[in-house]
Amino acid sequence: MGISPLFDLESSDADRLRVDEALMASVKTPDAYLTEIASHLLLAGGKRLRPMFSVVASQVAGGPTTEEAIQGGISCELVHLGSLYHDDVMDESPTRRGVETVNAKWGNLQAILAGDFLLARASEIAASLGTEVAALLARTIGRLCEGQIEELRHTYNVARPLESYLSSISGKTASLYSTAARIGGLVSKFDRGLVNALTAYGEAFGMVFQIVDDVLDLSATDAQLGKPSGHDMVEGVYTLPVLFTLANGGVPASELADVLGKPLNVAERDKALSIVRSNGGIEAAIELAEMYVEAAEEACQDLPNTAATVALRFAPNALLASVR
Amino acid sequence: MGISPLFDLESSDADRLRVDEALMASVKTPDAYLTEIASHLLLAGGKRLRPMFSVVASQVAGGPTTEEAIQGGISCELVHLGSLYHDDVMDESPTRRGVETVNAKWGNLQAILAGDFLLARASEIAASLGTEVAALLARTIGRLCEGQIEELRHTYNVARPLESYLSSISGKTASLYSTAARIGGLVSKFDRGLVNALTAYGEAFGMVFQIVDDVLDLSATDAQLGKPSGHDMVEGVYTLPVLFTLANGGVPASELADVLGKPLNVAERDKALSIVRSNGGIEAAIELAEMYVEAAEEACQDLPNTAATVALRFAPNALLASVR
Repeated sequence: MGISPLFDLESSDADRLRVDEALMASVKTPDAYLTEIASHLLLAGGKRLRPMFSVVASQVAGGPTTEEAIQGGISCELVHLGSLYHDDVMDESPTRRGVETVNAKWGNLQAILAGDFLLARASEIAASLGTEVAALLARTIGRLCEGQIEELRHTYNVARPLESYLSSISGKTASLYSTAARIGGLVSKFDRGLVNALTAYGEAFGMVFQIVDDVLDLSATDAQLGKPSGHDMVEGVYTLPVLFTLANGGVPASELADVLGKPLNVAERDKALSIVRSNGGIEAAIELAEMYVEAAEEACQDLPNTAATVALRFAPNALLASVR
Repeated sequence: MGISPLFDLESSDADRLRVDEALMASVKTPDAYLTEIASHLLLAGGKRLRPMFSVVASQVAGGPTTEEAIQGGISCELVHLGSLYHDDVMDESPTRRGVETVNAKWGNLQAILAGDFLLARASEIAASLGTEVAALLARTIGRLCEGQIEELRHTYNVARPLESYLSSISGKTASLYSTAARIGGLVSKFDRGLVNALTAYGEAFGMVFQIVDDVLDLSATDAQLGKPSGHDMVEGVYTLPVLFTLANGGVPASELADVLGKPLNVAERDKALSIVRSNGGIEAAIELAEMYVEAAEEACQDLPNTAATVALRFAPNALLASVR
């Protein structure tokens, strides 16, 4: 999604390497079988966005990257990885990041247990950073679950309120970015004002991230996505562009509501995609994302004027550019 | 399993009530749907053994039950509950504690997420008790996974080593009893010697608990168990009596090995049960359990002479009596 400029800092390659090494070390166990399963998705790549958020957040006052910032960052990445293991079981996904999923390769039992194991390792690392970080990470794992449950209870609901969507993505996505940035500030012992500005920034960035992801799922072609377009909609997860189209009323809304509310075949999906794309749903979603970009920029006003802050300010704009 | 005498202390009814109230409060969320799913198994009953372990451990020096001991205890019970949610998904179990499982009632997605949520709440409570408790609980969740993975990698393996069985039940069962007792000592600010004695006691008790459970699964009738006898063996989990029978060699061992190594039909199960029961496998397992009872009693030597210590000393004996 073209967000590599976020890390276009002098130190970022070295930091990224430290993050990867710390991640590999964190999933080592005396049991070779468990280690193999727990490191499977890690080894398949990934952008390490969340740990790099912690690292860049820890640099906004101009200081060097500390081991605490690396550890705090990887605790967030391990939460992300653990939740992906569980997501892939729930969605019965065969592949992720170009490799077989853990559930496909070893089975659901292994994927559930290894996901739990990754969450436990994340909590162990957070505990090594003090009670505030430990409590924050635990609360964040809870929020991820709350956000996913909120989504789940509204699947196939064409009357899903906008508030349900926003609170769901705040919990399932934005909370972990917010926490990654906050941990970067906490372990750097920044004053509360700075820590809270980083937290607000992370939350706003996370909202942009998820809205952009949801827009792409509906606006991009199958070929661009590398997977079937409109996947969420087919599965009954109605995201921002769909909800805006439904809320706008008129013929497009009632035609869309007629198609949705159940699993879709390819023809129905194509019809629904066409209605959403040609009635301003995409544009309205991008407009709301712009408001979160502005909120992120506003939070950056409270950060010192450093290269790290410039990188943070740039990031949500770069994200949004990918759907414009 | 006739272990109610463990809590035959003057204060135990009141403590048990406090544990139940704290558990109910701990799974409340602003979302009624998630609260309902997260409290489902809790409301179905349960012996609250692990939290009562924390509470009784906190009383061994003669002091009253503190709120910290209650909170420490419920953090362990929430871990137990969360792991049961995931177990029931993995085993596709339809009922537990006489009610529908979460996976049967709401679905696997809900059960996985609500299990994660319970684990997260447990970690949040542990964090409120300090970094040592937070790190200990996180490490314990990791050990539960390690123990279950160890079991999983040896399913249907008739050459499963005894060490695999012992390390698996230490991780999947004894570690949480050990941690429950240790947390009771830690939050009471006992000296290290006392804390370590409680930890050793809990580990030994947990080993007795799981061996007794495994013996019952093979020695009791379907009617006594309320479920099919030999269930673990049918599913390829070869526990202590089976492993002892296989290790003893001779005709019984080779006959048993011939039947095992694959899922069993009813006739095969009956044959395997008969071989295990009539060749000393049950008795040998009980003998090993006795060694852990002795280890638990030895750990009690290092505890002050109080009513709580008497209750702890009695507990593993009461457990073992249920299979004699």
